[in-house]
Amino acid sequence: MLHASVRALKYFAAVGICATIAVYALDVTKSAAQSANKVQLQARSDASPIYGITIPAGYRDWRLISVKQLTGVKGKQLRAQLGNDIAIAAFREGKLPFPDGTIIAALHWNEASSDTDNKVLADGFPGAGLESSFAGSAVNVQFMVKDSKKYAATGGWGFADFTNGKPGDEALHKTCFPCHVPAKDHDYVFTHYAPTP
Amino acid sequence: MLHASVRALKYFAAVGICATIAVYALDVTKSAAQSANKVQLQARSDASPIYGITIPAGYRDWRLISVKQLTGVKGKQLRAQLGNDIAIAAFREGKLPFPDGTIIAALHWNEASSDTDNKVLADGFPGAGLESSFAGSAVNVQFMVKDSKKYAATGGWGFADFTNGKPGDEALHKTCFPCHVPAKDHDYVFTHYAPTP
Repeated sequence: MLHASVRALKYFAAVGICATIAVYALDVTKSAAQSANKVQLQARSDASPIYGITIPAGYRDWRLISVKQLTGVKGKQLRAQLGNDIAIAAFREGKLPFPDGTIIAALHWNEASSDTDNKVLADGFPGAGLESSFAGSAVNVQFMVKDSKKYAATGGWGFADFTNGKPGDEALHKTCFPCHVPAKDHDYVFTHYAPTP
Repeated sequence: MLHASVRALKYFAAVGICATIAVYALDVTKSAAQSANKVQLQARSDASPIYGITIPAGYRDWRLISVKQLTGVKGKQLRAQLGNDIAIAAFREGKLPFPDGTIIAALHWNEASSDTDNKVLADGFPGAGLESSFAGSAVNVQFMVKDSKKYAATGGWGFADFTNGKPGDEALHKTCFPCHVPAKDHDYVFTHYAPTP
C-alpha cells in the first residue's frame, strides 16, 4: 500500500476534490426505470474506478498487520495496515501469493502532537530529547483486494482509495498497480507483518 | 501508555537485563512441596512487579486504538495501541472513567526503513521528498489493566512492561503511575481513539 501513502501526500491538496468530480446523483427521476438507473449509478459512485471496490464493512475492527510513517515536504502521516482474517492468516503463515479473498486496509492519518504530552516527556526524562506524535485527523483509507481471476491484469489485486468515504478518480487508480510492481516478489505487497513484542 | 514509550527508550540499553535480574528458577527441587513452591515462584516471575499482571493471551489480535511515534536521542520507535473489547467500546463511546476489565496494550517497535521502498517513492514522486518507515524489530509491550478496587492506589490502573516476554523490574514499574498523573482528566490514559478514515 506504499503507493497509497504516497498518493495521500500528493493529494493532500485534493482532499474533497474527487468527491466533487465524481458523479454522485442524477437529478432526473421521471420514471421507475430512471429511478432504478439512478440507484445503480449511485451505487457505482461509491466504488473505486477500474476495480469496482467498495469500502468493506467493519474494516476498522480488523487485526493489525503493521504501522508506518510517511514523511514528505507537505507533511507527515502515521498509518496502520489492518487485514481481514484471510490476510492475517496469510501474513502469519508467510503464505505467498496471498489467497483470493485477502483484503488489506491502509489507514492514514495526519501526524499530530500534544504540548502536554511532550512536556511530560521532557520533565520525566530530561536530556533524552523525547517527543511523541500520534494519529490526528483522518486523511484517507485504501484497500488491496485479492481476486486472481477478476484482477488478473494487475497481479491479481484490485485497488481502492477513499477520502471521506468517496473513491478517488480513475487517474488516481491507474497509478496504483504500476507503483506496486517493485514489490512483485512479495506478491505486490510492500507491507510486512510486524513481530509480536 | 506514554510513560511506557518513554521508558522503552530509556531502557533501550537495558533490554534483556531485567530478564537477568528477575528470579526465574529455583534449582533445588528436593520435595513435592518445594516443587510446588517452584511452580508458584516461576508463575510470579512472569507477572509485573507491584501489579501482578501477566501478558494477556491473544492481545496481538485486539483491535486498534491508535498509532504513535516516539523520537529521542537514542532512536525512533513506531507504536500501536490495541484494546480488548471493553477498552474499544469505552473509547468509541467516550466512556470515562474506563470500566473495570479494560486492558490497553502498547506495542513498541524500532523504526526501520527500506532503500527499495524509498527508491519507489523517489522515482514515483520526484521532488516530494517522500520517505517511509515501518515497524521493525520488537522493543517491548506494555499493558494498563483497569480494576478500580485492586489498583485503587494508582488511579484504578495496574501497569505492566514486558521485554521478550519478561517483566521489567520493580523500579521500572514504580515510575508508571506518577508519569500518567498528568492525564488524570482522561482517566490517566494518554492515548485517544484514532478516527476511522
